[in-house]
Amino acid sequence: MRVHNFSAGPAVLPEEVLKEAQEELLSYQGKGLSVLEMSHRSTEFKQIMEDARSRMLKLMGLGDDYTALFLQGGASMQFYMIPLNFCAEDKKVNIIDTGAWSTKAIKEVKKLDKKLHIAATSEDKDFTYIPKEWTLSDNPAYLHITTNNTIRGTEWKIDPDVPQDVPLIADMSSNFLSKPLEFAKYDLIYGGAQKNIGPAGATFVVLKKSLLEKQNPGMVTMMDYNTHIKKDSAFNTPPCFSIYIIGKVLEWIEDNGGLVGMKKRNEEKAGYIYNILDNSDFYRGTVCSDNENCEKRCEF
Amino acid sequence: MRVHNFSAGPAVLPEEVLKEAQEELLSYQGKGLSVLEMSHRSTEFKQIMEDARSRMLKLMGLGDDYTALFLQGGASMQFYMIPLNFCAEDKKVNIIDTGAWSTKAIKEVKKLDKKLHIAATSEDKDFTYIPKEWTLSDNPAYLHITTNNTIRGTEWKIDPDVPQDVPLIADMSSNFLSKPLEFAKYDLIYGGAQKNIGPAGATFVVLKKSLLEKQNPGMVTMMDYNTHIKKDSAFNTPPCFSIYIIGKVLEWIEDNGGLVGMKKRNEEKAGYIYNILDNSDFYRGTVCSDNENCEKRCEF
Repeated sequence: MRVHNFSAGPAVLPEEVLKEAQEELLSYQGKGLSVLEMSHRSTEFKQIMEDARSRMLKLMGLGDDYTALFLQGGASMQFYMIPLNFCAEDKKVNIIDTGAWSTKAIKEVKKLDKKLHIAATSEDKDFTYIPKEWTLSDNPAYLHITTNNTIRGTEWKIDPDVPQDVPLIADMSSNFLSKPLEFAKYDLIYGGAQKNIGPAGATFVVLKKSLLEKQNPGMVTMMDYNTHIKKDSAFNTPPCFSIYIIGKVLEWIEDNGGLVGMKKRNEEKAGYIYNILDNSDFYRGTVCSDNENCEKRCEF
Repeated sequence: MRVHNFSAGPAVLPEEVLKEAQEELLSYQGKGLSVLEMSHRSTEFKQIMEDARSRMLKLMGLGDDYTALFLQGGASMQFYMIPLNFCAEDKKVNIIDTGAWSTKAIKEVKKLDKKLHIAATSEDKDFTYIPKEWTLSDNPAYLHITTNNTIRGTEWKIDPDVPQDVPLIADMSSNFLSKPLEFAKYDLIYGGAQKNIGPAGATFVVLKKSLLEKQNPGMVTMMDYNTHIKKDSAFNTPPCFSIYIIGKVLEWIEDNGGLVGMKKRNEEKAGYIYNILDNSDFYRGTVCSDNENCEKRCEF
């Protein structure tokens, strides 16, 4: 019997994926060894990696002007790597603060002594909404948003517009590939795999190649996106088994209607919870509602 | 049929471990969910993590003055984190250069603009031996060695002596837990798990707590060993499944004679290869031999 899993992440994986992984755990495609012990330089694993990478970009509708990486360290490592790489001394990191996760991103910018501008914040109402307006600073290095906030329950409903010379960067840890988005609006998308596309241990980074023109010089090896791009995410030993499961989950997403299918499925799932919350005399949703007739949640 | 796996790493895993993992892949201990999808904050996973950590320290014969962490990013990330944390401005990183991996460690020290002292090197003979003598600089931050060198085939046969106030740090990626060592001589031991104790995706760090007194201030969150110590390696989502397999491999090591058993097993395995090399008219070992009667390898 499989239990219901309400964790924000690591989250439930499709049973079909787990069964496939189980079947070939001792011998991947009859090769006589497990992906758990397979060389990351082998033809087999290179194919697994390439398969996961190309499926991811295809689901997002992105072309050759983007690259996809599988790194380690989670969103927490990206909070550090992104300003280190992409905020020059005369520039300012612009962040829209929507609570816990963006607050963590802000903390690392400060630790790095980079200039910081909070373009908007919903702190005034305890992060119960996503700001609808924001103001960029002069010399913005990029604008950073957190597209979904697991702790507060808020989610961006639009992909924000930014001036053409300002890169848009998003932490999509908790809603990546859960619905169609205008992914091509973003210059860098990142997150931990464990909430939507696989098990813990891998970090996805989808990067528009033109962003690299804005990279600071002198990066240490592991913090340099180019290190990982040049070596197809295998400069050092990658989290092979996590990437293998990710490939299978992405295939499952394709087989289940792609991102349109995921959106439908996720709205149904969310409906079970929100219908109860919104129609209950006892429970109350904590997120401000766009619905003007909603008296149960605070005004947006 | 299982194949022979000659990869330096990721390396072969015990078949018993793979079979156990396979059996409980869809339901860990009958709980109805896989470790691949289990919350890292759950009681079950905390127990898995604690089990792996305590088995590791016990196998090494280390007590409460040490702590063990499971991080991400491999030895490559440690090449950066160690000098960042433990080399103060007035100190010098001391490294014994034994080829490829220590050369990579040296590169990151230079990138960080830390002062560097090569305490010894075997570059004169193409890294075919381990230096028997070395000279520390004034104000050494620590001495760093690479206990085994997969590319050159050389291995430290002793645990070096250093003055009491000089921390000894070792990259043991490729021979960790392969034999008994005087682990208590070391202040920090690290490496990728994938060569000896588990699958790719986890990095072990065994740290003597007193080393933290020498830590530089102002570390960014993910590069700060304290971040991970305070949160028992779960500040951010850890590579759960890799850690789970590591726990099983460590149990297998215990059940197979501990590190004494591993030494015997590994010497037998190495014997198959070296006996052929040393008795062949065609093949030649590339590593200098301590054996004075050995004419087949270069003089030590």
